[in-house]
Amino acid sequence: MRRLTTLEDAAQAIRVMQVRGAPLIGATAAYGVALGLADDAGDARLAYVIETLAATRPTAVNLHWALARMRRVLQELALATRRDAAWNEARAIATEDKAANAAIGQHGLPLIAASHAAFGKEKGNPPNPLSGKGGDKVRQASPATVNVMTHCNAGRLATVEHGTALAPVYAAHAAGLPVHVWVSETRPRNQGLLTAWELAEAGVAHTLIADNAAGLLMMQGKVDLVIVGADRIAANGDTANKVGTYLKALAARAHGVPFYVAAPLSTIDFACPSGAQIPIEQRAAEELGAGDVPVANPAFDVTPAALIGGIISERGIAAADALAQWRP
Amino acid sequence: MRRLTTLEDAAQAIRVMQVRGAPLIGATAAYGVALGLADDAGDARLAYVIETLAATRPTAVNLHWALARMRRVLQELALATRRDAAWNEARAIATEDKAANAAIGQHGLPLIAASHAAFGKEKGNPPNPLSGKGGDKVRQASPATVNVMTHCNAGRLATVEHGTALAPVYAAHAAGLPVHVWVSETRPRNQGLLTAWELAEAGVAHTLIADNAAGLLMMQGKVDLVIVGADRIAANGDTANKVGTYLKALAARAHGVPFYVAAPLSTIDFACPSGAQIPIEQRAAEELGAGDVPVANPAFDVTPAALIGGIISERGIAAADALAQWRP
Repeated sequence: MRRLTTLEDAAQAIRVMQVRGAPLIGATAAYGVALGLADDAGDARLAYVIETLAATRPTAVNLHWALARMRRVLQELALATRRDAAWNEARAIATEDKAANAAIGQHGLPLIAASHAAFGKEKGNPPNPLSGKGGDKVRQASPATVNVMTHCNAGRLATVEHGTALAPVYAAHAAGLPVHVWVSETRPRNQGLLTAWELAEAGVAHTLIADNAAGLLMMQGKVDLVIVGADRIAANGDTANKVGTYLKALAARAHGVPFYVAAPLSTIDFACPSGAQIPIEQRAAEELGAGDVPVANPAFDVTPAALIGGIISERGIAAADALAQWRP
Repeated sequence: MRRLTTLEDAAQAIRVMQVRGAPLIGATAAYGVALGLADDAGDARLAYVIETLAATRPTAVNLHWALARMRRVLQELALATRRDAAWNEARAIATEDKAANAAIGQHGLPLIAASHAAFGKEKGNPPNPLSGKGGDKVRQASPATVNVMTHCNAGRLATVEHGTALAPVYAAHAAGLPVHVWVSETRPRNQGLLTAWELAEAGVAHTLIADNAAGLLMMQGKVDLVIVGADRIAANGDTANKVGTYLKALAARAHGVPFYVAAPLSTIDFACPSGAQIPIEQRAAEELGAGDVPVANPAFDVTPAALIGGIISERGIAAADALAQWRP
């Protein structure tokens, strides 16, 4: 276990991904502000602290959202009260994240329940691309279990509690619905191992796969639902998430598998009109562990709103092109 | 370096992937038959040798094609002449593979040349999924270099010489065309490192990426052409290749990037009507290196013919749904 006790601890933890996952990055940055104001809560120091934390990673908007909120609250206060207020506001952000994720779980649960309820019923299948025929009536192989695919780690290790993408899975498991999760390895940082670990801790059935296997599994009808997290959702619903998400969204569309994004409202960047304006972080070549081989290592990709069945937030589920209803 | 001197050496090399790549598996199996007949070339031994080699891996059809050819040639011969004939036929298979791949290089070269010739000209862009608008006229970023994406290793390390997917790249490089290759890591076995190694040896510019990055690069317009190899092509053009190929094909289609499969005729299984009949090898969980985590590890996936721009063989380029012209 690592204890963060200074501004630089917090910044470094975010930068090197000891702390990762958009919601947890936001909460950590908020606490980082509190840590950074320990000795000096003046305007210059506050600006420096916020700039230092803001420079750690570019894509996850929760970072900037949390820092903007801290700045807004603190800059109006007398210097003597800022430090305590910073701790209070950081705690509020963490508490709200936990509540938002619990709500995401409840709002997403019906998606899994509906998939479960559909089992055993004859249902139309999407066209089979291998025969070009399709539309055959088929019976689902499994009589009960709902197969959810996710990507990266958007569970409790990526948030203050519950997770985002995994919150509906945990809610389903708590409700007694049989659920199994396809866990993508998530190269190059292998966050899938975090997901596998936390699902095992929670007693949720899961299977790790190479990222490359997602298309085959969908073609084979082994995926009922895809739920991923998000690092930044543009106002038009285009969603930046861990690189590889877009490939899963394309495969889901090709096979008629519902594809959902789960994220708190703090991940929606209403100031960003579309995915084309989301900065994509390029990380170090070393993450691929390939020695001197030339490497490109973008950490995120953007899934167009048109491929997203809906955004699950603490407010409910909205169509990706209808986020304006949630504009603050 | 490892020298194969017995039937079991050859079978083991194929099974554990010391030798991999459909064409090289075929040639190795042919030599394995010759090695297996060293002391006894009777009918029972011949059948045993062929069965042993056939059981090593299920998906690559070149294995079965080479073994069927060896059986056809050898079973008609007197026992005393079989051993020498086996060596001769194995050498013929290897020589023909080299020639076929050289021809694939020459037939594929115009695809790269055409992409090169298009640079600097204003050209229509496929619709941009992030804006939903698209159709904008854009100028290619690079003035010259053709960016080819491949998957796995279908180069000279996967064949007797030249490679299949990489043969057109080597031909372009030899012809002085500036070409750069996006090399997918290809989890879980990381054959991308083999591709990077052989491209470096040949002096061809290349960049390694996580498999997850393919969609983003295509969305960013950084891929001009995708060429992959194949392990088995069904009569209708559906193509089994290393798992993850299908995700690249989906992304290529979404962004209007030409997607080609390069393989010798020996990879086409005219007895297999469609991809639905191609057996998909499941390999050991250990390949993902995730300890006790439950794992699924399919080694191949199937790309529907409809996503393939053409099949490049030693006979030229055919539409994926028009392979009947090459039926022997």
